[in-house]
This record gives sequence, C-alpha cells and structure tokens, in this order.
Amino acid sequence: MTLVEACRAWKSVHGTLPAGLTLIFEGEEESGSPNLAPFLRDNADELRASLALICDTGMYADGRPAITTQLRGLMGEEIVVRAASRDLHSGNFGGLAANPIQVLVNALAGIKDDTGRVILPGFYDGVEELSNQLRAEWEDLGFDASEFLSRVGLKDPIGERGRSGLEMVWNRPTFEINGIAGGYAGDGFKTVLPAEARAKVSCRLVGTQDPQAIRAALQAHVRAHVPADCTVEFHPHGSSPACHMDVSDPAFTAARAALCEEWGREAAFIGMGGSIPVAGDFQRLLGMDVMLIGFGRDDDRIHSPNEKYNVESFAKGVRSWARILAALR
Amino acid sequence: MTLVEACRAWKSVHGTLPAGLTLIFEGEEESGSPNLAPFLRDNADELRASLALICDTGMYADGRPAITTQLRGLMGEEIVVRAASRDLHSGNFGGLAANPIQVLVNALAGIKDDTGRVILPGFYDGVEELSNQLRAEWEDLGFDASEFLSRVGLKDPIGERGRSGLEMVWNRPTFEINGIAGGYAGDGFKTVLPAEARAKVSCRLVGTQDPQAIRAALQAHVRAHVPADCTVEFHPHGSSPACHMDVSDPAFTAARAALCEEWGREAAFIGMGGSIPVAGDFQRLLGMDVMLIGFGRDDDRIHSPNEKYNVESFAKGVRSWARILAALR
Repeated sequence: MTLVEACRAWKSVHGTLPAGLTLIFEGEEESGSPNLAPFLRDNADELRASLALICDTGMYADGRPAITTQLRGLMGEEIVVRAASRDLHSGNFGGLAANPIQVLVNALAGIKDDTGRVILPGFYDGVEELSNQLRAEWEDLGFDASEFLSRVGLKDPIGERGRSGLEMVWNRPTFEINGIAGGYAGDGFKTVLPAEARAKVSCRLVGTQDPQAIRAALQAHVRAHVPADCTVEFHPHGSSPACHMDVSDPAFTAARAALCEEWGREAAFIGMGGSIPVAGDFQRLLGMDVMLIGFGRDDDRIHSPNEKYNVESFAKGVRSWARILAALR
Repeated sequence: MTLVEACRAWKSVHGTLPAGLTLIFEGEEESGSPNLAPFLRDNADELRASLALICDTGMYADGRPAITTQLRGLMGEEIVVRAASRDLHSGNFGGLAANPIQVLVNALAGIKDDTGRVILPGFYDGVEELSNQLRAEWEDLGFDASEFLSRVGLKDPIGERGRSGLEMVWNRPTFEINGIAGGYAGDGFKTVLPAEARAKVSCRLVGTQDPQAIRAALQAHVRAHVPADCTVEFHPHGSSPACHMDVSDPAFTAARAALCEEWGREAAFIGMGGSIPVAGDFQRLLGMDVMLIGFGRDDDRIHSPNEKYNVESFAKGVRSWARILAALR
C-alpha cells in the first residue's frame, strides 16, 4: 500500500511515474501464492525489470527503518495418524489397542534434541553461517532477546544453544508444531481412544536448505514411529526455500540513503524470520534482484487477533518510497 | 433396565417382589457419579443390604453369560500448558519462543517405555497378579486378542510386553491420551506458535493402586518437562480405585447356576476394563458385597456413534434376573 500511494502521489505532482513501473498485487501470499509463480513464468518477458520492490516487511524493533536482506523459507506438512476404524472406549480397549495420539506424540517429541537442534538426517545441509558484514551489522543492532520476548509475556530464548537471539529468528532453521488435535479436548472428559490424531508442523528454512529433502526426512522419521496397526497420511502445506539478497548491489546503498533522509536514522540491514515466497520467485523466475522495504512494527500483532498497521508507518512509509523511487530512477 | 423389568414381571405374576429390594437409578455414572456417594453415605442405614446387584456390564465376547468380578479404576486429568500471552507468528518467534504444544508433547511422549510400561515412579504400587483360580478361568475363555482387535480394524495387542490380551484389558493399569488440542488444526494451515496447548489423559487402575498418588506422580512428571517460560495447570477429571469382588461368596455360585439355566452355558467370571465407581462405593460406604451381571455385547459400540443394545440381551436378560432373584432370595 505505501508503495502504491507513493506512485499515486508522485503522479499527481509530476503527471507521470518516476520510472517504468509494473505494479503487481498479490492476494494469496498467506496461502503460499499458488498462482503468482505460474503468472510470472507465463509473462516473464513483459514483467522482467532491473529490480523488484516488495513492501511486505517491517522496520527494526525500535522504529528504525530497515531493508530486509534475507527471508527464511518454509516447509509445512500435515500429519494424520489413524488406528482403529472408530473411536474406542478406553475401558474396553485401553492397554490393548493402538492410540494414534500417543503414536503422533512419540513421533513429534524427539525431533528436537535437548540443545534445540533438529535431529532429522540432512536437516542442516545448506545452512550457512552469517557473513562477517551482516554479523557485525546485526551485533550493532543491540537486540535483546529477553526484552523482545517480554512483550509477549516470555523471557527465555529457547532456540539452539550457543546462538544469538537474532540468529535464532533470522538465520537458523526451525521445527515447530503449529497445531495438534485428536480425541476429545472440549469441556468435561471422554474416555476414548480416538480413531485418528493429526498435527500441522512447519520448518523455517535458511541458506540453501531443500524443502523437499526436509519433507522427506520428516516423513521418514514419522513413519519409523508408526506401528504396523496404524496408518499415516501426509499432506503438504507450502514449500519455499530461503531467500538471500546481494547487499553489494548499489540499489541497496541508494535505498539506505533515501530511508535515512526520511527517518533521520540509518536503515538497518535485517533478516526476517518469516517467509515471502514471491521474493524467491522474482529471483529465480525473472532473474531480478529483489529489495524488501516495509514499515511494519513489532507490535502490529500480525496473524493474531487485533492486528493493526501504524499510522506513522503509513505516512512516512509513503514518503520513504517516493524518496527511494527518486534515488533509483 | 433388565433388572427393573425382571422385578416388574415378577410382581405382575406373584403380586409381590421376590425379596426386600431397594432400586437405585443412577444417571451420573458417565460423569463420575458426584452425587451418589454422598447419597449412599447419608442414607446408609436405610440402604444397607446383603448384596448390591448392578446390571451395567457385558456378556463374554461370544455371547456367553458372565459375572464381572473385577473392574478397573480410573484417574483422569486435564493438562493445560501456557506460554506466550497470545498466539505468535512462527516467522517472528519460531526458534526463539517456547511452543506449548512441543512442551506438552515432550511431557507425554516418555510416560510409557518401549515395553509398554508406565515409567511414573510408584505407578505399579498395589498392582496385583491374578489369582490362580481366575488365571485358569481366563485361560479357558480362549480369548484371541488379534481377533478381538480385528473387529475395529486392528490386529496387534500393543500393551505391556509379556502380558496376555485379557490381562492387558482387565488386570493391568494403563496410561492413555484421550484428547489433545493446541494451535490450529482445521483446514489449511496457520503458521502460529499457540499461546496454549491441552491434553486429557487417563489411567485405568487395578489392584489397590491409589488414584491420588498416581495423579501426583503424573503432575510431577509433567512439571519436570515445563520450562521456566511456561506455566502448567491441572484439572482433575474423576478418580476411583479398582474394585475386586470376593468370588468365594455363595451368591456367585447361585447366580452362575441361574444364568446357566437361562443361556444353556456356564457363566464366565470375567474382568472389565472400564470403571463403575459406584461398585466400589457400595463396598466401601455400605460394606456390601457387589455382583455385576449384565448383557451388553462387544459390538454395542459403547461411547461411540450408533451405540445399540441387543434385543436378545434385553429379553433373556430380564429372564436371567428373574432366575437370579429366585436363586438368591
């Protein structure tokens, strides 16, 4: 929105856009953008440009402007374990029949070890250490993981032992259980052994980790925990590799200076723990460099009830884009 | 119902009941009978009798009449693990913040070892081996666990290694996860770290296992898996010790003969994997012997959709009670 408004403002003042611009509106980002990649591929000749600008990112924690130079990828998977042909009474069958919740729980419990590392074979293939430049820039940010966590009622970073808080969220891969359901979990109690149990899990990916190889390793791990009497089904939910920008491109220097003019502070080069698969699509399918600049705040509660967008971010964000477009044209 | 109908039939033929009978109707058995025990205690003098007859049990697998001589007890517990003050985006917080589903899963995974034994300290205190008489009677039943399981699409008894199928369901304690929920498990996918996760678990108990001691051991085990950033809440759901009848009481011999007259086959002495807490209440609060005779079938689908009651069980069940009342008066 800030980028669109900047174009509108520029045109109302100058009567024309600052450069040859193609605007693409993507409404399926939260569901894995199934249609954008085919569209880019089908229209590559028309769409190819010197740079893709994406405004779906955030500022640095304390309101400092930021350019996002790397995004984690994502591998999402749903796991369904089935046992008996119907729910069973735990008095009649308990202790004798397979319980799919227990099978699922056993499969999911051991995926991370006591140091926070994922034990799936090959999981860390392609995971790269930070460059010296970015490590120094990130250290300068003075990120306080405990303070960051305190905003949501927590205090202890529980990621991989020996990693900084920013590495944990920006430059290290994860395994998380995003949802689990089985049997009866409502008010009261039902003494059932359910017929099935399911979980949704996802890995955030970095470097050149291969989502499909990790999906296969996860499936193999789960299958090894499923007894003969149970079946397991897998349903893929999204798959995108991580995305790293080349910060030596002069466009990054120009945009950094433009942001400094608007906000009075140097823009940080930051990572992003989330995924914007389309950034990688522009790189891979159109061979374009990508620059991600956005003005979201840490307290925007994204993907939570009462999500908001900051009004200052909107106004100064529009002005920022006008400055960046002027610097890049 | 069969017992009530037998009394009604007897009265319509003879004009009176076969003996001094007090009929008690209990509608809260599935929710732990919170009011029956106080009622029995408050009215003990009026209610005390030579024997309590309970008709809420089943026949032996192949339609053979049966007297249930032992019931497992129950300890039910709900576990709620909470982490952040709201659901978190797994991109922003994944790898850094505690995930309550993972905490819960880790706590529940190790409660049974690879041989099917529960590892909670003191769990097997009070668990008793079968008497020689019952072991011989149970062996004569020729129970085929794989055939039993095949009726619900399964085949492998997965209980404690080295135990027979009937021991697993009648004479060994269990730990089962009856329900689990956390995060988003509906259609599609949400990349959240949820604020909370919950599970309902229960143990079937045998011998003189103490439900409260086992509840305390379970809570201690779960607490040991909860990191400093999470909280855990426990909610009890039912608590009753196992119940064993004295089969040397002459009433058992008389009832066995009466059942044989009606069904043409000797009644089996069987156990029951489920719990009927009121049986223990009659024993403990009124000092009465209890005899459980019922006519439920294995395919009744109790506690499942499409539960039914067999018509032959109803008709011959009523006649059986008339014979038993005649034999006992």
